[in-house]
Amino acid sequence: MTPFERRTRCAQSRLVAAGADALLLSPGHNCHYLSGARIESSERLRLLVVPASGDPTFVLPTLDSDLRDGTWIDNIRTWDDDTGPGPVLGPLLDDIDPSHALLADDMQVRVSIDLRRRLPETTFGLASEVLASLRRRKDAAELDALRAAARAADEAMRDVRALGADAVGRTEADLAAFVEARLAAHGGEGVAFDTIVGAGPNGADPHHASGDRPIRAGDPVVLDFGTRLDGYPSDQTRTVVFDGEPPAAFERVHGVVREAQDAAVAAVEPGVRTGAVDRAARSVIEAAGYGDRFVHRTGHGVGLDVHEEPYIVADGDIALEPGMVFSVEPGVYLPDRFGVRIEDLVVVTEDGAERLNRTDRGWECGDETER
Amino acid sequence: MTPFERRTRCAQSRLVAAGADALLLSPGHNCHYLSGARIESSERLRLLVVPASGDPTFVLPTLDSDLRDGTWIDNIRTWDDDTGPGPVLGPLLDDIDPSHALLADDMQVRVSIDLRRRLPETTFGLASEVLASLRRRKDAAELDALRAAARAADEAMRDVRALGADAVGRTEADLAAFVEARLAAHGGEGVAFDTIVGAGPNGADPHHASGDRPIRAGDPVVLDFGTRLDGYPSDQTRTVVFDGEPPAAFERVHGVVREAQDAAVAAVEPGVRTGAVDRAARSVIEAAGYGDRFVHRTGHGVGLDVHEEPYIVADGDIALEPGMVFSVEPGVYLPDRFGVRIEDLVVVTEDGAERLNRTDRGWECGDETER
Repeated sequence: MTPFERRTRCAQSRLVAAGADALLLSPGHNCHYLSGARIESSERLRLLVVPASGDPTFVLPTLDSDLRDGTWIDNIRTWDDDTGPGPVLGPLLDDIDPSHALLADDMQVRVSIDLRRRLPETTFGLASEVLASLRRRKDAAELDALRAAARAADEAMRDVRALGADAVGRTEADLAAFVEARLAAHGGEGVAFDTIVGAGPNGADPHHASGDRPIRAGDPVVLDFGTRLDGYPSDQTRTVVFDGEPPAAFERVHGVVREAQDAAVAAVEPGVRTGAVDRAARSVIEAAGYGDRFVHRTGHGVGLDVHEEPYIVADGDIALEPGMVFSVEPGVYLPDRFGVRIEDLVVVTEDGAERLNRTDRGWECGDETER
Repeated sequence: MTPFERRTRCAQSRLVAAGADALLLSPGHNCHYLSGARIESSERLRLLVVPASGDPTFVLPTLDSDLRDGTWIDNIRTWDDDTGPGPVLGPLLDDIDPSHALLADDMQVRVSIDLRRRLPETTFGLASEVLASLRRRKDAAELDALRAAARAADEAMRDVRALGADAVGRTEADLAAFVEARLAAHGGEGVAFDTIVGAGPNGADPHHASGDRPIRAGDPVVLDFGTRLDGYPSDQTRTVVFDGEPPAAFERVHGVVREAQDAAVAAVEPGVRTGAVDRAARSVIEAAGYGDRFVHRTGHGVGLDVHEEPYIVADGDIALEPGMVFSVEPGVYLPDRFGVRIEDLVVVTEDGAERLNRTDRGWECGDETER
């Protein structure tokens, strides 16, 4: 049984437990997670129908029936432009006759409004009600992909750090392009999110996009980037100084953030609540007097979605379980001066945490600093 | 008044006419069309609320309030991770108290289900009910962007055609990478859809993705690609033979498709139905005996979405209006042999059509063939 079929069978037993009769999934991560097919939305209806028992069915435009590639699902029903999906979709839904159905969270409303019209007696919920708890514990195939993506990102970060003084004078956008080329060179497939290169005061904006500012000697530079391997993303952050003397207070702030990140990673083990992981990081930063400069949550789950459960937030009360993967990324942001953020992905193990990112977390650059 | 504000005021008067009290738009093309802001969905709620009268309001996470860049909309209400969007969104919706609201067609169900819970008495429709008819007539700013994108694609096509015999031996994927690099060199921003390079028998699949097949002398090659400028896409197709003698029947089929494409473009003028444009192309192909090998519609509207209204389909009864932009792309597909498709974007003018694509539609390659 492939991992995809195993996940589907598991999802079906959860459907029954949740009192739902079917999953109706448009293309996207939930559909990929269960089917193995990597297909995208189109204005022509593409739908994966997973009944609570029995085999799933893909509804696809005739023109796109090659999209079945990569999936274990044999039942494909195709529809033509001249009839529309009705003649195929109608009988399939009649057969299931769902009283409660769960829709892919990222299904577009234009599709769901059509399904609501076809199923006027049905109540609807979100697929994440059964899939999120399944997806937040990664299986072996997923961990392999996440580790491979993290390795590619680590290699790219080593290449960036090795630039040392050569990075000075390049713009943030230039450096972002360099990062993206190195990610691709190490096997990455595109970027998992917009590459962030925030130099000097730009680093004080946690979501700064890379711009025209040239990197100057002494600039703290926040580098937050990710790529994908086999559909799974990487996500890590380092804050470095390529050359010259950093500004006053930088070294202390960097040390505080690093200590906070270590404390949060050390807090990770099965049974611990997500809020306690956030607290472990936040209390270090508060004790150092920067509590009001740590303006975001400590982390987010990572899987097919770069941001998914479990979220590592102040009041989070999800108990950690082995196989969960999330970012640990505290930061301190001093407006008009600089920002520091350090981020690794971690997987919860049977008795603690494994970091997926292994590169140096220090701020100094040049070949010899790599440990 | 900016084009964006003008579009919003126009949309508001249509809301009133449609008996709807508000547009609720998540990030996406409808949101961009009215606001000018190019923002993406995130797991944190981002919403543009457009009441039927009065000024629109953006609801954004505090962390992302810089996303207001590029918009004329002054009202921004921000929410924090620790409270969630409720305290901001609740009063805003209470104020409008909509009995009927229109949701962005591409809003994700996870957002719409939350809005349905907040507004249990409200009925919901799709934003396209008022925006599609507005968006399908392009204004001057949109036509400028579409023309610029078409020019970039035309330049890239000239570069590809000039390869001539040098293209032989390259794989489809290699050639696709060359196309994408040339699009970027001519000012394009990324690709508007997956680049199609279908050589030989692969060209007989209208949606073939570029693969490992090397281009051979005599191969007909279908090239269908697009980029974006200022948010607006290009989309055109040429079928060429880089070198050598094409297979039997190719020259005749190419001529038929070209004649069909010319006939459809010639049929375009205000008042003509979309079905008549389809018929103009289809009847040429049917008369030549290839009717059952023209397996798709003749075209699709192009705007912020690469596929949008008006669709040029066999039974289409939308009357053409000046400012509409769509593709005209008949094709003939001979399984296991080759395919031919020729596509230009056209804009409906006061008395006919203007082609946005101007490059040679012939199949021969080499510098000297460019007209």
